[in-house]
Amino acid sequence: MSDKRVYFFGNGKAEGSAKMKQLLGGKGANLHEMSSIGVPVPPGFTITTETCREFFENDNTYPAGLEKEVMEHLERLEKLMGKKLGDAKDPLLVSVRSGAAESLPGMMDTVLNLGMNDDAVKGLANVSGNERFAWDAYRRFIQMFSDVVKGTSIEPYEHALEAAKKAKGVEEDTDLDTSDLAKLTEEYKTIYQKATGEPFPQDPVKQMWDATSAVFGSWNNPKAVTYRRINDIKGLIGTAVNIVSMVYGNLGDDSGTGVCFSRDPSTGEKVFYGEYLMNAQGEDVVAGIRTPKTLSTLADQSPEIYQQLEDVRAKLEAHYQDMQDMEFTIQQGSLYILQTRNGKRTGAAAIKVAVDMVDEGVIDEEKAVTRVTPQQLDQVFHPMIDPLSKKKNKAIAKGLNASPGSAAGQIVFTADDAEEWVKDGKKVLLVRRETSPEDIGGMHAAEGILTSTGGMTSHAAVVARGMGTPCVAGCKAVEVSNKVMTVEGKQYKEGDFITIDGSTGEVFSGEMPVIEPKVSAELDRFLSWTDKVRATAKRPGLTDQKFGIRTNADTPHDTKVARDYGAEGIGLCRTEHMFFEEDKIRSFREMIVAEDKSAREKALAKLLPLQQKDFEGIFKAMDGFPVTVRLLDPPLHEFVPQEEAQIKELAKLGGITVDQLKAKIDSLHELNPMLGHRGCRLGITYPEIYDMQVEAIMKAAAAVAKAGGTVYPEVMIPLVGTYQELKILRDNADEVARRVISESGQKVEYKIGTMIEIPRAALTADEVAEHADFFSFGTNDLTQMAFGYSRDDVGSFLPQYVEDGILEYDPFAVLDQEGVGQLVKMGTEKGRSTKKDLKVGICGEHGGEPKSVEFCYRTGLNYVSCSPFRVPIARLAAAQAVLKNR
Amino acid sequence: MSDKRVYFFGNGKAEGSAKMKQLLGGKGANLHEMSSIGVPVPPGFTITTETCREFFENDNTYPAGLEKEVMEHLERLEKLMGKKLGDAKDPLLVSVRSGAAESLPGMMDTVLNLGMNDDAVKGLANVSGNERFAWDAYRRFIQMFSDVVKGTSIEPYEHALEAAKKAKGVEEDTDLDTSDLAKLTEEYKTIYQKATGEPFPQDPVKQMWDATSAVFGSWNNPKAVTYRRINDIKGLIGTAVNIVSMVYGNLGDDSGTGVCFSRDPSTGEKVFYGEYLMNAQGEDVVAGIRTPKTLSTLADQSPEIYQQLEDVRAKLEAHYQDMQDMEFTIQQGSLYILQTRNGKRTGAAAIKVAVDMVDEGVIDEEKAVTRVTPQQLDQVFHPMIDPLSKKKNKAIAKGLNASPGSAAGQIVFTADDAEEWVKDGKKVLLVRRETSPEDIGGMHAAEGILTSTGGMTSHAAVVARGMGTPCVAGCKAVEVSNKVMTVEGKQYKEGDFITIDGSTGEVFSGEMPVIEPKVSAELDRFLSWTDKVRATAKRPGLTDQKFGIRTNADTPHDTKVARDYGAEGIGLCRTEHMFFEEDKIRSFREMIVAEDKSAREKALAKLLPLQQKDFEGIFKAMDGFPVTVRLLDPPLHEFVPQEEAQIKELAKLGGITVDQLKAKIDSLHELNPMLGHRGCRLGITYPEIYDMQVEAIMKAAAAVAKAGGTVYPEVMIPLVGTYQELKILRDNADEVARRVISESGQKVEYKIGTMIEIPRAALTADEVAEHADFFSFGTNDLTQMAFGYSRDDVGSFLPQYVEDGILEYDPFAVLDQEGVGQLVKMGTEKGRSTKKDLKVGICGEHGGEPKSVEFCYRTGLNYVSCSPFRVPIARLAAAQAVLKNR
Repeated sequence: MSDKRVYFFGNGKAEGSAKMKQLLGGKGANLHEMSSIGVPVPPGFTITTETCREFFENDNTYPAGLEKEVMEHLERLEKLMGKKLGDAKDPLLVSVRSGAAESLPGMMDTVLNLGMNDDAVKGLANVSGNERFAWDAYRRFIQMFSDVVKGTSIEPYEHALEAAKKAKGVEEDTDLDTSDLAKLTEEYKTIYQKATGEPFPQDPVKQMWDATSAVFGSWNNPKAVTYRRINDIKGLIGTAVNIVSMVYGNLGDDSGTGVCFSRDPSTGEKVFYGEYLMNAQGEDVVAGIRTPKTLSTLADQSPEIYQQLEDVRAKLEAHYQDMQDMEFTIQQGSLYILQTRNGKRTGAAAIKVAVDMVDEGVIDEEKAVTRVTPQQLDQVFHPMIDPLSKKKNKAIAKGLNASPGSAAGQIVFTADDAEEWVKDGKKVLLVRRETSPEDIGGMHAAEGILTSTGGMTSHAAVVARGMGTPCVAGCKAVEVSNKVMTVEGKQYKEGDFITIDGSTGEVFSGEMPVIEPKVSAELDRFLSWTDKVRATAKRPGLTDQKFGIRTNADTPHDTKVARDYGAEGIGLCRTEHMFFEEDKIRSFREMIVAEDKSAREKALAKLLPLQQKDFEGIFKAMDGFPVTVRLLDPPLHEFVPQEEAQIKELAKLGGITVDQLKAKIDSLHELNPMLGHRGCRLGITYPEIYDMQVEAIMKAAAAVAKAGGTVYPEVMIPLVGTYQELKILRDNADEVARRVISESGQKVEYKIGTMIEIPRAALTADEVAEHADFFSFGTNDLTQMAFGYSRDDVGSFLPQYVEDGILEYDPFAVLDQEGVGQLVKMGTEKGRSTKKDLKVGICGEHGGEPKSVEFCYRTGLNYVSCSPFRVPIARLAAAQAVLKNR
Repeated sequence: MSDKRVYFFGNGKAEGSAKMKQLLGGKGANLHEMSSIGVPVPPGFTITTETCREFFENDNTYPAGLEKEVMEHLERLEKLMGKKLGDAKDPLLVSVRSGAAESLPGMMDTVLNLGMNDDAVKGLANVSGNERFAWDAYRRFIQMFSDVVKGTSIEPYEHALEAAKKAKGVEEDTDLDTSDLAKLTEEYKTIYQKATGEPFPQDPVKQMWDATSAVFGSWNNPKAVTYRRINDIKGLIGTAVNIVSMVYGNLGDDSGTGVCFSRDPSTGEKVFYGEYLMNAQGEDVVAGIRTPKTLSTLADQSPEIYQQLEDVRAKLEAHYQDMQDMEFTIQQGSLYILQTRNGKRTGAAAIKVAVDMVDEGVIDEEKAVTRVTPQQLDQVFHPMIDPLSKKKNKAIAKGLNASPGSAAGQIVFTADDAEEWVKDGKKVLLVRRETSPEDIGGMHAAEGILTSTGGMTSHAAVVARGMGTPCVAGCKAVEVSNKVMTVEGKQYKEGDFITIDGSTGEVFSGEMPVIEPKVSAELDRFLSWTDKVRATAKRPGLTDQKFGIRTNADTPHDTKVARDYGAEGIGLCRTEHMFFEEDKIRSFREMIVAEDKSAREKALAKLLPLQQKDFEGIFKAMDGFPVTVRLLDPPLHEFVPQEEAQIKELAKLGGITVDQLKAKIDSLHELNPMLGHRGCRLGITYPEIYDMQVEAIMKAAAAVAKAGGTVYPEVMIPLVGTYQELKILRDNADEVARRVISESGQKVEYKIGTMIEIPRAALTADEVAEHADFFSFGTNDLTQMAFGYSRDDVGSFLPQYVEDGILEYDPFAVLDQEGVGQLVKMGTEKGRSTKKDLKVGICGEHGGEPKSVEFCYRTGLNYVSCSPFRVPIARLAAAQAVLKNR
């Protein structure tokens, strides 16, 4: 620890730099940096975070020597500015700002206009030539000091202000004149004394020390502590304090203030973009009362200032090698930069800026890959509500952002209606309590889906993401019954228009304009760089270093989409969705109600060629890449009809009475279907089902291979909990596969593996691996069972859990690395303890979530698999994981 | 490996002994042992198991040297017996029997009467003076040899026998005379030649070698392999072959055969107990065609033989130090013991024999503890269907043996009816598809419970075991609808009598006599010895070596019962059952439907004194021991009414409309309630519920302590999956507890801990332990989640899994040590890595299951907790675990 506790900056020099973020905080370090590279910043000094630590260790007292050091720096500042704190002629006023090494936006305290007292108010009036401004600043300072430093209520101050306006019969603060404000200031002093038991401190140095200890103290206020806990910000020792001379943009027509971006934050184009207002304070630009002007106006009106700003823009961008978001103030003709930071931008802009900067030679490709967040990339692929329109409308409800993108349409309440209406050329939004596999057709037809129950991995959410259809799920404020949707008492009927934003979870009344996504020319280049980076993946101990991106796709169409997005194979092809198609559901149901094995086999024989055709389409679309097909997983009761007419028809087909069929359907009912008769348990009790599926897969593979295709079928057995299950089913599958190969005379390389989605399978993965060519972690179910959460029922408590910080994230959205992650790690390690080169992937919803992708990379998985629309995101996340873990 | 492959026994000598079971097999070793201690056994020799291994390794050929060694022993046997194999005057006949180190009853082959041929048949007729007997033995031998050694069908033989009887116009085998049998024997030879392609071997030595290789081969027949797999018999190398001279009990009135026990196997009394028949073969005693006589008749009729037998009895019991089950044959006045083994016995007998033998100085107390199996001990506590009556009736269906003991009564189909009918003085059996918490009253009233669905840990099973009520669960053959129970087409109506055996899972039609259990005077002594043994528990690394037995009890009555059975505290007191009592359910429902927190608190305030009273009763009954109370666990929808009238009443009470209430009830519905809003998740969303419960617990504890009692309340928070949940709820509970203690002025030592029943809690137990004073593994839920099995739905596949050997045991009955056990071990170790002396117990159903108790002991748990009626079993199992792991 150095003895130096205070660092000065100003006048083109600085004792600190951007590298000293730990010691000076982010804001402080940037001010030092800008100052030292010649950007005009208001001078000031920074008290270090280390001092904050000492302050706490010394029972909230300043360390010896600090006072002297600060006073020296204050004098230096006064000298540089040619002003003195509290001076009645030309007072120095300062801001006292917090600033830790990581940003805690709005969590800690700031005091402005410090130094104000009965003398300084006159001085400020004198210097600014604006007496009213000076008194207004004084009375605001008293309130802020009382609130922030002394922790009193601001209510009496607000009350006094209201009373003053009422007495004068005016409504706006601006209608109060200088004498009103001077009088109010006196009242404020009285209020202050009453609230704190002491007179308002006229000594600016005392003000400064009080403010400094308040800022230090705010490091440990509850909201800051909570914020750090929730955001997992650890290892920081405290906040720095920045004491910076005040500059004012509202000192007349040669003063002003504005914000600007070094490039267009919406499009990324290299144009200087910004807004400003003359004779105004910072908040005026944001508040929207006056309409700000564009920078081109400034170029016309004050070309010198504009040129200065343009120079700063160039300097800062070159220095930080990224697009900058700057705040500036012009005080009586002098430009000051108050802050610079890397500018927030849209997804499209992020990509364009990154690609342009590579072309400009500013950054290299790897750096570019770090410049776009996965969230930004995601934006590029989805329709968005026109931002202007969104600004003007308030959401009527908010649910889970279950599938990104926005959609507007007329409300329908059943899947059948959705299909009907769309046939009639209408755009519809399907609104339901929850969806079920039977609704697939309608879900496909709808522009978007809104459900009142269910979580991030409810049926609606999973299917919508798979289809790329916008979806808001688990929107509890929405009640659905009898074809009426009620939100806070207001009813929405069939045919009414609503709009949803699946990226935010918002629901709006009425039809809002939705902008279709425009994929930029730069996107492909950018994504190709992520692949280059990903190809450098390196994990110790792995024979095959490749970190692949596959997709979860069940149709040739989705497969094609995913491949266009860069998928290198299918990690999860769910076979059950296929059974819901018109031509198959009948035979499948016939199979379910069959009285014995031979009747089941008869029904399955009808399904075989249809399944085979499905697989052929998928193999063709994924030619040259592996395709992992999961055998039947859901419980049979998901397939049986619920409606009387369908039941009658099925009974006839199955040659049984309606009562017998109903009894059969009833017998399939389960109290906890998630933990019931499904997955490989069905394969064990009805081996003929899996036999048919394996036959269809292998016949399809042989046919496509015969036609010149390159196929790598991988048969995946779901829900294995014991190695015995896998052994039996693997033997069966091997037998069928060998038979098909021998009958077809076509060699086909195939693999047989299993999903690891039951905790016990992970715990006994060493045994399971003996019978598996590959593992694929089904982290949806693994999460359900490791936590004991039903993804369909978590709505009643999970949102609160996340809000209260009991859980950092919804574990169905972001893999719980601490708990579920242990099972993934254990499963991988134990599996490879048996088979060193066991191929291990993930096909749960987490396969496209950036944090989870990084975890999979670190854990040594060979690939991740995700919905087609998330493939680009996974590519980016994977590349970033490679860079981060080099 | 020694060179010796054949061991001789006979004439009071033997080359082997009982210690050589691995080499000579169990049967062989015992024959050697008996021979060497002077018990008269028919002489013979044993070919070793090692030879069997060589036989397999040499591609099913005999090792060099074996032939010579066997022939030498055969000559020695012929010399000793004064007979020769195949001799036309006085032939030696032998049996060739399998016998491995562990018993595989009936799984391997045996050949009798070997040595029979065209000469020997004459010799046997000559020696026995019974020509018909000789021919009958010959034709039987041909058939047996053909079947066992050559593996042909026995059908043609049976067919020829039927034809012979038909030709003669008789019905019974015994009506065929000597010449008929001689003719039949010729026919048999023809059949043999046709079936095997070779003439029937006249060379007795060839017969012997053929039979020997058949017996060796039977080691690997499918049923033997399956039996070993299912019974987890590992590490054996093969079967021995015993070649033993035949003796006959059917050679006239000075011959006979019988079975006897050295003590009464039903009661354990020290009386010589057995049955015999003169002039009969072994199977005649068992077959029941002739009525056997008791041993006392033998004492009268053949006092010399009886005395010999009595001497053998004394000798063998003294030698083996256990009650013996012996088979004997008298051949023309000479006694031979064919087999001795430790006798099977009833539970009552096992205890009496063990205690008596200690008193007789034969064994010590520790040995006695190993002499009673937990299953035998269990029998002692439950009513049993009169065995005679059971022999005469066939079960109409078989379900799971969910709660032991038998019960007979009239069928009722609702819990309310059960209560009504019992009030009218009737005995009823409650028959339901499944039970729910609302049925508690009726379940209590019924003699027994029968459900058609659900597994070993379904609601019915768990509650029945807790109450000690016999229960057959998951009886799939039973269909229940509209107050009719249908079994294979036959209908049983309300009021019809049925009888169930909850120890076996059988269901009988009609009212069968049920014998109430009679606890013997010896039981208490025996159990006190188990406690002595248990007190010597020693596990490395544990500070507190005590291995305690607690109980799961929810009422003062159950607590009292358990304490009488030796429970040392309560490991699980479920608070929710209390809410179903008439006086509480109303307020509890009022709480559920309350619109806001204050309305909930109002309803809870009514419950507080009632819960407190419950706890006071339990604390008093468990005075001096710890009582672990689990806070509310089940989801709220289990408590809401289903019937219209009750819904109306509740709506009125809650001040809402029926529609509003129905909507509320509907909103509580969950797709997978097992994984839903329950346990501590309720505690987080409705902290006032747990606050009330903790207040009731602590107030009760303070009140009982004030009245002079000694209370150790332990508050247990269920379903924790993250340490954050526990931290929040623990802090709340601590606050309430401290307040109650301070308000009451009564010091109460209390603990706050958690159940580990969510896999994630076990995985993160190091963090969870920071906030827990104790862990209690809830292995029911842990099993559900680790396997992904819903205990209510496993009926559709679990029975098949166990039958097929996919699972060794039903994991809800016997803890899955391999998978779930890892979580228990991990949870314990990680928990103790944070808190070295963390108290860890188990309160799932497995706490009373002997194998699981041993696992808990080995894993270092501090106690197990089980239903009151299983406490003695747990005491025994714990003691046996201590002995086994010394």
